[in-house]
Amino acid sequence: MMQVSVVKIGGNVIDDARKLNLFLHEFGCLPGYKILVHGGGKVATEVGGRLGLQPNYVNGRRITDADTLDVVTMVYGGLLNKKIVAALQAAGCNAIGLTGADANLVPAVKRPVKDVDYGFVGDVKSDDVNAEILITLLQAGLTPVLAPLTHDGSGSMLNTNADTIAQEVAKALAAGKDLSVQLIYCFEKKGVLRDPADEGSVINQVTKAGFSDLVADGIVSGGMIPKLENALAATASGVERVMIGPAEQLQQLFNGEAGTTVI
Amino acid sequence: MMQVSVVKIGGNVIDDARKLNLFLHEFGCLPGYKILVHGGGKVATEVGGRLGLQPNYVNGRRITDADTLDVVTMVYGGLLNKKIVAALQAAGCNAIGLTGADANLVPAVKRPVKDVDYGFVGDVKSDDVNAEILITLLQAGLTPVLAPLTHDGSGSMLNTNADTIAQEVAKALAAGKDLSVQLIYCFEKKGVLRDPADEGSVINQVTKAGFSDLVADGIVSGGMIPKLENALAATASGVERVMIGPAEQLQQLFNGEAGTTVI
Repeated sequence: MMQVSVVKIGGNVIDDARKLNLFLHEFGCLPGYKILVHGGGKVATEVGGRLGLQPNYVNGRRITDADTLDVVTMVYGGLLNKKIVAALQAAGCNAIGLTGADANLVPAVKRPVKDVDYGFVGDVKSDDVNAEILITLLQAGLTPVLAPLTHDGSGSMLNTNADTIAQEVAKALAAGKDLSVQLIYCFEKKGVLRDPADEGSVINQVTKAGFSDLVADGIVSGGMIPKLENALAATASGVERVMIGPAEQLQQLFNGEAGTTVI
Repeated sequence: MMQVSVVKIGGNVIDDARKLNLFLHEFGCLPGYKILVHGGGKVATEVGGRLGLQPNYVNGRRITDADTLDVVTMVYGGLLNKKIVAALQAAGCNAIGLTGADANLVPAVKRPVKDVDYGFVGDVKSDDVNAEILITLLQAGLTPVLAPLTHDGSGSMLNTNADTIAQEVAKALAAGKDLSVQLIYCFEKKGVLRDPADEGSVINQVTKAGFSDLVADGIVSGGMIPKLENALAATASGVERVMIGPAEQLQQLFNGEAGTTVI
């Protein structure tokens, strides 16, 4: 059975050149088929600021107007994606950097306007992800590196959360025959913690039943609830397991020896 | 025999949204396997200026310093490449946007410092172009769209002329078995002109022997000499023919019914 790991890294790693290089070296060494999904980090805000753009927030959510879309297309799809690809190539990993527009990998729908108009933000369904072409690329010996960008099929790029892309890509791959998919979320903590102040309090395993208890007991709260809900949804859709843990322990996460395992 | 067209468009088309859309629509309709190589246009200079960079010229040649490399990586590899890809996708053409770093398509060597240090500029040899992966992508139904960027294999992107990339990619493809390759250079004129002031004076065909006469007679001069020399070198390396003509007549160029044919 073909095994694929979908690994997501976020801004905390991308913004730190030293951490990023260590991480990419480890990622390049992972055995088997793999896909990297990267977030944005602070560079887009920094470049936008230097270009005179004011970040536009509504209810704490960033709005992607036309100018911001150009900036994230430049920074995520160009600067960050190609820096990562060039670094992986130097580490001997045959990376190919892509957005959701390339090869129509991740088509999306511009988020409908309800209370808030989020602008050029794309919502993704795993059914629409073009898993077949990803498998073709993997079988050609390539390692796809996905920027957090999609497109609407009508000529516009769209801004999409990297967590979402990682999850929908993993689900789409898992829907295929003879594919065993694991999804690895790298973040700044050692895993899902019982006590947010104690990095030693990692919950090793979360199951659907266990999750309800953790929420009921108030152990898991805030932003960790949707993260775990999404992870459980992924496993319900055929993803073998979801690992949540620190970028510095990628190899151990890959082996299920660190962080939190959601099954 | 598998037929591939390598088409290059430059800044004059890229800088004009209306021209670009018309061109991409025509390109999307071309039959057979095809690859698009795009230049940079004025956007990089404009973005660089807004970011506070001063263009740095030595002997009339633009120098790519580290900041400029970041800007061209953003603008060529991100903004322009993805706008073109999204537009082609909307036109029903399954485009995949790539730089020379992606899939190690076009490795390059940082230009050695002689009289001038050009900075992060990459020189390319067709022997190093990874034609095999381009063929894999074409056979998977994809249309590669190449930005004018390469990499040094040690983690750095490099800035490379789009004409050069188009030529070396065409030569590398032509070196393979059972491949018939034509190279189409779109530029702002109707073709190579006998009289630069007269758009009606297109030279329909240039051969190796005819080229020497054209130069000796002073009919071809200036920047057109290296352009034709490169075209003749491409045909000497197995490229079937090189077409030089206007972007508005892509279909006719493709059919050999417009512009200048170099054989």
